Amino acid sequence: MVKINENYLKLPGSYLFSTIGKKVNAYIQAHPDKRIIRLGIGDVTQPIAPAITYALHEAVDEMGHKETFHGYAPDLGYGFLREIIAKEDYAARGCNISPDEIFISDGAKSDCGNIQEIFDESCRIAVCDPVYPVYVDSNAMAGRTGEYEEETGRWSRVIYMPCTAHNHFVPELPQETPDLIYLCVPNNPTGTTLTRDQLKVWVDYANQKGAVILYDAAYEAYIAQDDVPHSIFEIQGAETCAIEFRSFSKNAGFTGVRLGFTVIPKALERGGVALHSLWARRHGTKFNGAPYIVQKAGAAVYSEEGKAQLKEQVAYYMRNAKTIYTGLKEAGYEVYGGVNAPYIWLKVPEGMTSWEFFDRLLEEAGVVGTPGSGFGPNGEGYFRLTAFGTYENTAEAIERMKKMPSLKK
Amino acid sequence: MVKINENYLKLPGSYLFSTIGKKVNAYIQAHPDKRIIRLGIGDVTQPIAPAITYALHEAVDEMGHKETFHGYAPDLGYGFLREIIAKEDYAARGCNISPDEIFISDGAKSDCGNIQEIFDESCRIAVCDPVYPVYVDSNAMAGRTGEYEEETGRWSRVIYMPCTAHNHFVPELPQETPDLIYLCVPNNPTGTTLTRDQLKVWVDYANQKGAVILYDAAYEAYIAQDDVPHSIFEIQGAETCAIEFRSFSKNAGFTGVRLGFTVIPKALERGGVALHSLWARRHGTKFNGAPYIVQKAGAAVYSEEGKAQLKEQVAYYMRNAKTIYTGLKEAGYEVYGGVNAPYIWLKVPEGMTSWEFFDRLLEEAGVVGTPGSGFGPNGEGYFRLTAFGTYENTAEAIERMKKMPSLKK
Repeated sequence: MVKINENYLKLPGSYLFSTIGKKVNAYIQAHPDKRIIRLGIGDVTQPIAPAITYALHEAVDEMGHKETFHGYAPDLGYGFLREIIAKEDYAARGCNISPDEIFISDGAKSDCGNIQEIFDESCRIAVCDPVYPVYVDSNAMAGRTGEYEEETGRWSRVIYMPCTAHNHFVPELPQETPDLIYLCVPNNPTGTTLTRDQLKVWVDYANQKGAVILYDAAYEAYIAQDDVPHSIFEIQGAETCAIEFRSFSKNAGFTGVRLGFTVIPKALERGGVALHSLWARRHGTKFNGAPYIVQKAGAAVYSEEGKAQLKEQVAYYMRNAKTIYTGLKEAGYEVYGGVNAPYIWLKVPEGMTSWEFFDRLLEEAGVVGTPGSGFGPNGEGYFRLTAFGTYENTAEAIERMKKMPSLKK
Repeated sequence: MVKINENYLKLPGSYLFSTIGKKVNAYIQAHPDKRIIRLGIGDVTQPIAPAITYALHEAVDEMGHKETFHGYAPDLGYGFLREIIAKEDYAARGCNISPDEIFISDGAKSDCGNIQEIFDESCRIAVCDPVYPVYVDSNAMAGRTGEYEEETGRWSRVIYMPCTAHNHFVPELPQETPDLIYLCVPNNPTGTTLTRDQLKVWVDYANQKGAVILYDAAYEAYIAQDDVPHSIFEIQGAETCAIEFRSFSKNAGFTGVRLGFTVIPKALERGGVALHSLWARRHGTKFNGAPYIVQKAGAAVYSEEGKAQLKEQVAYYMRNAKTIYTGLKEAGYEVYGGVNAPYIWLKVPEGMTSWEFFDRLLEEAGVVGTPGSGFGPNGEGYFRLTAFGTYENTAEAIERMKKMPSLKK
């Protein structure tokens, strides 16, 4: 008789965004006349840039002709894409990453979820709290996280690193020694970052302990300040302790196009084995490459036109971030993030939980955000708004929030 | 200190097609003047059909405009695609599969590789021998297959079901009871199939034992004979014991476009848990949907024009299959498959191994095929040729094979 993977049964409730979806649908049913503004899920709204749709059309035409048709892609990605990434994202920032240390995939979520497979079941993970739920959930499914404690909202074997206003959202080195350290910088959900010096502390720590840092840099395009590194490989020593995940979702609007990549330096070894070879085997066995047309679109992101168009797109969203940030400040909120990231992290009014604030915001302003507690226990009391809406909607949402009756003092 | 997943280190050598690639490259280096004909890897050569490139162009245009832009897809796939699949692939064949039992993915290889995650580590798997290597490799990575025995080419905990000319390539019910039974029908590599009655034996057996059949139907479009089912769900009782994998790679030439789906009936439970809910959780946590433009392309496969164009494409490849099959018969080979599948499985000349035949075929005819032993110990002495080349190349390859000096008697 087949036994199922019982680790799945330990996972609490349903996924954060499904719950939000259900609440929003219930609201829409009850108030068909009200216009909802969604600043909840981190999905983009601007269309794919012209330089990229042009590349997509060209690639589709290639696929339609015998002479230029492309079948199976190379397992680890097309050379044309890996080379331009190595040049533009790494060499240009002084990082020594070669094209064959870059693995093209269908997105950072897949890679972040799958990477744990190449490590032993016994590995202990450390995560920032709050953080993007995929790191913990994917390890819970693999049986690495122990038991889930309903009351605290924590797993018994996970090392949580609180990131709150108290420590300026900079995780402290943990008491217990982790094997795998997930860092998401710029952070989802708090929108905060680490400086070069702050990140160097982690790189040194990981090298000293033999730990591996799993560095999710999906929001790197939004970094505006000079002392914030765009890649962990800007930090000396990272090549022997870090794996980096990158995405085209937020810098190029590819949430529905699907493309990402993972960088594993060949110098990164544990137990005498190159992690690069393990991930190559995983990729070759359980993945069949990202679509040719999508990889061509990825290359267009780095063309001169593509870069110019995407710079505008990022600026558009950052204008939203500023609108939210300053608007909420004016309304008397404590606000974080929004400077190097498309996320704004606000403290909910005293005496309210994150979900209570979610309900009030939806009910009174028709605005959808994301409750901080959905990202971990230390997210309780906070709330995430994203800058990915249209400018008009974003500005209106802030006006509506300023007028919320329950928040008037 | 991080420990790696040591199961990866047990995997023998490198992946079959990488080895072939290296040998072919070495040959090309040594004989730059010779023209290689590749009938090895199962990659298609015909371009994407006009009805589909049209849909791709349309979808790209949608992505380029704010009003019609699509961000994150629904985790489990767009309704428009799941509905047409339920209608055309299932309802039309009398199978009672609803759209929400269909999970859209980036391809059958990913799904076949990932499905084992929802089962316990202790599960024993049974595979046909020879077979597509992903089933065993993905389970080896998860630690389910015991130790690899170099001499026999077998894993200690895998139940192998020999499929050779002796049993007409029909696997017999195993002595030991498996938990997970992988069936690939039409079979890769042998090109053989099971009739309805033969498959019913397996469905009854799985239901009786509480096993689950993982049914890979990637080549279903090539089925020509009436008594061969296109889906396992044509067999009564399959809804309580089977998961089916389907691909757009071979019926629509999507090897480089990437699209597939998996069907898990809601009635399929083990230990009181619906496997549907486990896979939904896996999909939602570690995958972010197939690209919108690719899902639109998938829907175009079922349009009237799409169906007509793809019928021609399949016929084109099946003409190749017939050319290979009859040509090799004339040349005195023992030949199987090729009637309901794009693969031809031939017995190599007496006294030769599969790899020896590979080397001779490359050296003397400049033709690349796949050694049967690469698909399992019982593939030794056999050789796979695919019908996915152009007609001209296929015909020439057969002419060259007829003239091979070492095979003249």
